[in-house]
Amino acid sequence: MANDRPPRPSRRGFLKAGGAAVAAGASLGAGLAAPQNALGKTQPHAAADPQMAVEPFYGAHQGGIVTPQQSHTYVAALDLTTEKRDDVIALLRAWTEAAARLTQGGTAAPLPTGDAGDNKAAPDSGDVLGLGPCGLTITFGFGPGLFTHEGKDRYGLAARRPAALVDLPRFNGDQLIKEKTGGDLFIQACANDQQVAFHAVRQLSRMAYGTAAMRWGQSGFLSGPRGQTPRNLMGFKDGTNNPSTAKPQLMNQFVWAGASADAPWMEGGTYTVVRRIRITLEHWDNTELDFQEQVFGRHKYSGAPIGKKNEFDAVDLKEEDKDGNPVIPENSHVRLSNQASNNGAQILRRSYSYNDGTNFYIERWPPWRQETEYDAGLIFIAHQGDPRTGFIPINDRLAKFDMMNQFTTHVGSAIFAVPPGAKPGSYIGAGLFET
Amino acid sequence: MANDRPPRPSRRGFLKAGGAAVAAGASLGAGLAAPQNALGKTQPHAAADPQMAVEPFYGAHQGGIVTPQQSHTYVAALDLTTEKRDDVIALLRAWTEAAARLTQGGTAAPLPTGDAGDNKAAPDSGDVLGLGPCGLTITFGFGPGLFTHEGKDRYGLAARRPAALVDLPRFNGDQLIKEKTGGDLFIQACANDQQVAFHAVRQLSRMAYGTAAMRWGQSGFLSGPRGQTPRNLMGFKDGTNNPSTAKPQLMNQFVWAGASADAPWMEGGTYTVVRRIRITLEHWDNTELDFQEQVFGRHKYSGAPIGKKNEFDAVDLKEEDKDGNPVIPENSHVRLSNQASNNGAQILRRSYSYNDGTNFYIERWPPWRQETEYDAGLIFIAHQGDPRTGFIPINDRLAKFDMMNQFTTHVGSAIFAVPPGAKPGSYIGAGLFET
Repeated sequence: MANDRPPRPSRRGFLKAGGAAVAAGASLGAGLAAPQNALGKTQPHAAADPQMAVEPFYGAHQGGIVTPQQSHTYVAALDLTTEKRDDVIALLRAWTEAAARLTQGGTAAPLPTGDAGDNKAAPDSGDVLGLGPCGLTITFGFGPGLFTHEGKDRYGLAARRPAALVDLPRFNGDQLIKEKTGGDLFIQACANDQQVAFHAVRQLSRMAYGTAAMRWGQSGFLSGPRGQTPRNLMGFKDGTNNPSTAKPQLMNQFVWAGASADAPWMEGGTYTVVRRIRITLEHWDNTELDFQEQVFGRHKYSGAPIGKKNEFDAVDLKEEDKDGNPVIPENSHVRLSNQASNNGAQILRRSYSYNDGTNFYIERWPPWRQETEYDAGLIFIAHQGDPRTGFIPINDRLAKFDMMNQFTTHVGSAIFAVPPGAKPGSYIGAGLFET
Repeated sequence: MANDRPPRPSRRGFLKAGGAAVAAGASLGAGLAAPQNALGKTQPHAAADPQMAVEPFYGAHQGGIVTPQQSHTYVAALDLTTEKRDDVIALLRAWTEAAARLTQGGTAAPLPTGDAGDNKAAPDSGDVLGLGPCGLTITFGFGPGLFTHEGKDRYGLAARRPAALVDLPRFNGDQLIKEKTGGDLFIQACANDQQVAFHAVRQLSRMAYGTAAMRWGQSGFLSGPRGQTPRNLMGFKDGTNNPSTAKPQLMNQFVWAGASADAPWMEGGTYTVVRRIRITLEHWDNTELDFQEQVFGRHKYSGAPIGKKNEFDAVDLKEEDKDGNPVIPENSHVRLSNQASNNGAQILRRSYSYNDGTNFYIERWPPWRQETEYDAGLIFIAHQGDPRTGFIPINDRLAKFDMMNQFTTHVGSAIFAVPPGAKPGSYIGAGLFET
């Protein structure tokens, strides 16, 4: 029967004729031009079609860090199960090659072209055939367990662990779920399509069978009005005060790791903290608008700092009202997380909302409802040159004082050293293993 | 401080200037035109912008049934906690009014325009301000518990329960999770944006506080290449053989409920079955391509029935190979679910994929892995005029014989009577309560 099947093209070959940004290959067989169906009319891809966006894979830095944020993500952490250093290297080589293909709109590996492959599992699940590259980026990171695991130096890397890759302390209020915390290897896939992001992690984690096992995976999304700062599920604009990715000097100062003596291989990389923050939306939605604004330190609809008119007006922490009280409350999120409150530290937040349905929950604050609630909130993702001056002191202050803690609970946590980008022919993390 | 806040516009007022399909209201204050930021350049909405699509709310039928499928859904079921019939009617009236606003791009209720409202919780969470209507449809349904609850006729409706609203039988292989099964009231929100779909359910369920409580909620998505049949997470095209929504005669025959003697109020409505079907993607991905195709009865890449060239070639269940064996295997999904195998029955499938991260799982089939796996699969949604001739016999056969059962487990289930659409001034379900 296999000979009745049309020739199998590449993923890009499935793109509709008329796709502009990526040329359809010669393998686009006539039999593959699907007719219209009830689900929608054929329409040509617009020039700025987010499906057709392509991000580079190889380069000085990995993608997905200063890349303008795509609409969806799937992040995952795996635990290494092998004892062999060569297995880890082989996995990173294979991941690099597959990621380079996937980000450019390809399948994880070439699909078989003849009957010979039919009795094997295909090297790609095929579920995004016909979808464009969708601006896919894939970012790899290394958790503490790559360097030391239960006191053992499994791969001869313990001496190369960067001092900046600290084990995160326990923060006030943490309610971490073990199955959503930690991990030896990190994969972050971001794309302008939910299935394309998940597809990438799915192919890569499958390639790890026997070498590493899934620890946790998490889907996320960002619904930003185009050209505006997106609102998170609390209804406030999120990311206004990020350091500008358009300013390389700021990125070098706050985001990219330098050439430290203990970890020269991290130069051009970054340190990434991931926190799964559950938000009691039911509680929040019944909170007075004024109080919500006090919690954030910003006006909800405009995004302006309290007392200001416009979103990008400067945050003035010294301003007082006529009674001498601070206009931006002492324990507001904006004040506590502001650079001025943190010895000048900044981190690059690149977070996504998450929405995993519902489950039974016991609220931690009045009115302490016990009921079925949304398991929804924020996949907080922050990049920085050194978490010891970035996330850790900032979050320590927030965890203790932030009024927002009445509505948020950190239930997952992880930290990773994200190495620099790879050169073609090399692989992600080569500097760690080869020099 | 409230007087420093710009005037609060409608949700549509937040749409960027340049939005074509929906006119920005006069309330779009100058202060709200956000400058460009690092997240993306301002770009005008294209004519066919899925953000700007608007679906009608009022009409003979509810939206979201034969509506061309949007890219995202959030479905939820609530349990009634009130004993009062008037509370139920008041909720349905409020839901109808809010749904009409939301689908047209509005907030659930008008936002307060002056300082008076600042000390109350706002009537809308505000998290989709600035996003367009996104083709939002909202569909309401009634579960068996509206009519009889633990043997009690709470609202005087028991005699009006349609015979077609049966309690679903236990099917072979069902592993239903109580917290993801059943429900007295159903809300399905579909939109071309994940946050817009969830936002709708979130506002509506909040309005039900004190009358009904969340039983389960579930996010879903569909990543179809434009103009082609989308592929589900198994990598096969899903929906090819659906009855055409473009043919009213087929919809009347298979989807819309007629004027039955026991439930005349259901005329123009439908019966909807929802099943949460977990798929062991890890197992499936390691399954030979030929076997995958035998399971479906279709070729994976083209979508054609086995032995045929093109997706929309007719399924010929009688065809035999040279050895006299059926070309489309006896226990393939396509054969078992085909109209010809089910006394001519058809159902309108309008399913979404779901992806809720990972959790520990024990596979039900060889190799019986016990490990952290994707909690992902299909939110199967099917509409039909009568489930006794539709979903029930079809799924009974599938549950017993479908080869696909090696990879799928039904973990959630619900059935609802979805009444016809409302007229302006009336409300969804008025026919049940008022006649």
